[in-house]
Amino acid sequence: MEFLKPYLALIESKLQAIPLPETPQSLYEPQRYIIRNGGKRVRPILTLLSCGMCGEEQEKALPAALAVELLHNFTLIHDDIMDQAEQRRGNTAVHIKWDNSSAILAGDGMFVQAMLQLQQLSDDVNHKRVSEVFLNGINTVCEGQALDMEFESRCDVTRDEYLTMIGGKTSALISASMQMGGLCAGAGDKKLVLLEIIGHSLGLAFQIQDDLLDVMADPEKFGKRKAGDIFEGKKTFLMLTALERCTEKERLKFIGYMNNLPLSSKQVEEVIDAYNTYGVIEETKKVVNSYYDKAEKALQEFGESNYKRDLQHLIKYLKQREN
Amino acid sequence: MEFLKPYLALIESKLQAIPLPETPQSLYEPQRYIIRNGGKRVRPILTLLSCGMCGEEQEKALPAALAVELLHNFTLIHDDIMDQAEQRRGNTAVHIKWDNSSAILAGDGMFVQAMLQLQQLSDDVNHKRVSEVFLNGINTVCEGQALDMEFESRCDVTRDEYLTMIGGKTSALISASMQMGGLCAGAGDKKLVLLEIIGHSLGLAFQIQDDLLDVMADPEKFGKRKAGDIFEGKKTFLMLTALERCTEKERLKFIGYMNNLPLSSKQVEEVIDAYNTYGVIEETKKVVNSYYDKAEKALQEFGESNYKRDLQHLIKYLKQREN
Repeated sequence: MEFLKPYLALIESKLQAIPLPETPQSLYEPQRYIIRNGGKRVRPILTLLSCGMCGEEQEKALPAALAVELLHNFTLIHDDIMDQAEQRRGNTAVHIKWDNSSAILAGDGMFVQAMLQLQQLSDDVNHKRVSEVFLNGINTVCEGQALDMEFESRCDVTRDEYLTMIGGKTSALISASMQMGGLCAGAGDKKLVLLEIIGHSLGLAFQIQDDLLDVMADPEKFGKRKAGDIFEGKKTFLMLTALERCTEKERLKFIGYMNNLPLSSKQVEEVIDAYNTYGVIEETKKVVNSYYDKAEKALQEFGESNYKRDLQHLIKYLKQREN
Repeated sequence: MEFLKPYLALIESKLQAIPLPETPQSLYEPQRYIIRNGGKRVRPILTLLSCGMCGEEQEKALPAALAVELLHNFTLIHDDIMDQAEQRRGNTAVHIKWDNSSAILAGDGMFVQAMLQLQQLSDDVNHKRVSEVFLNGINTVCEGQALDMEFESRCDVTRDEYLTMIGGKTSALISASMQMGGLCAGAGDKKLVLLEIIGHSLGLAFQIQDDLLDVMADPEKFGKRKAGDIFEGKKTFLMLTALERCTEKERLKFIGYMNNLPLSSKQVEEVIDAYNTYGVIEETKKVVNSYYDKAEKALQEFGESNYKRDLQHLIKYLKQREN
């Protein structure tokens, strides 16, 4: 994504320049570790683009952009403990490299660093309003994570509930990132609502696309085991669609599989067969595209600018992504 | 503490009235649980008193008071996971009643609720400044907790390092509570510095007094096992004073005990003997009183008011506390 490089370079340089103290080492070393371990920086890029689209220099939104990226990293540290994930971005997860206590505390500290970034907003930015959007976003992320954990032990999750869950876990912070960018440019309510719609739609599209790539993508490119979600019995958009469309007998069978993890290769094949039989792949592609379309349509309402053009390119790129 | 009842009643009623959603249950139920499980509410009382002492009605500082109490409860939830504590305020700790993941997430959510409270401050309060004091306080609390964990595996901790640690873990939030109260009343820098000194000193005095009560208090009143800290090999102010004053031979012996936990009753007796031999109890009492004196002296700088009188009573009460 050549056209995003200038944004990425700006964010990366400012992110690495955040002055974290040397000691206590057990608090700051894990924070430095996760900040330095890369990431796509999608959220802060969206903050900068949104600020630009609302008529201000992107630099004005830098504190907000750094805040959302730090916040995102805080959620990764804590989520990896909760999900017992051992890897993050190809590196050892914080709670494995250190321990659970250090990871809990480093995450808390990173949350504070995220909030502290907002103190750097220039005086003509409505600090209280930016904080409010940010905090409500974070709370919705927490709600999404709670739902995700609750879903693990439930076998009656609906697609609507799933959308609410990823709407929290994935979309809420993306949407907040964009609204915060807009607020840094002094955008009015109409533009803020559009940014909210774009962020929310992009988040849903991106997450459901991830579910789709689990079965569709070349595992080499995607970087994950083919059908890994099915093996792990995850209640993805595809699985929930299949469960809604298949026969009662099949439904009970698949639920049985998910209560006895992991699935065998033969069981995974059966699930994929059901995806094909019931048009699950096609349906999911349609839903992904509809959310991307919704984002693109809302984006058209903004006046022309380089920022708008770059976001249009980004959406086009995301639509076609294979990893 | 009859004279504090009106403050306590106000805080308690507002705290219980915070509108936490019903669902997701796994996020909000633990939050409701810890809020309803009581606590001394010392920090929010100090916020109200500080606001009053700076010439405003205490009600003006209510959002700040609720924020510090929620924040305190967030730290308790996460600390109990890290310390593997099973009880809190006589009730089952959140991570035991639910599980670690729920406790991590509920703590995160409570942090957000604390920050959201600040959104309720009236428009003439400097929201950004209050946030700044609060966030710096929280970060120092995290630093204190990190130091506390680092100290566990070190045998060369000094008393100065210990003071830095409790200055973070205990004093930072108390100090922030008082400064935030002052800021809600529009206090100038001179008063804010005084409030900072009072809060910091009270925090140190209170924590070191806790260390003292471990060996001095009637266990029935104190609610903890007599000399529990020594049995657990905790590096308290008393232990560190003893280690600085005793012979090298004794020092190595005691460090040996702390590397092989828990201590036996006979070993605990030896430690207490050393406390007596080296005047550790007397020295600690002196230090506690010096911090209370420092707080009282700074308090004298404020003009007379009912709030000031109540804080003077509170300090007098704390000085003589036996639990």
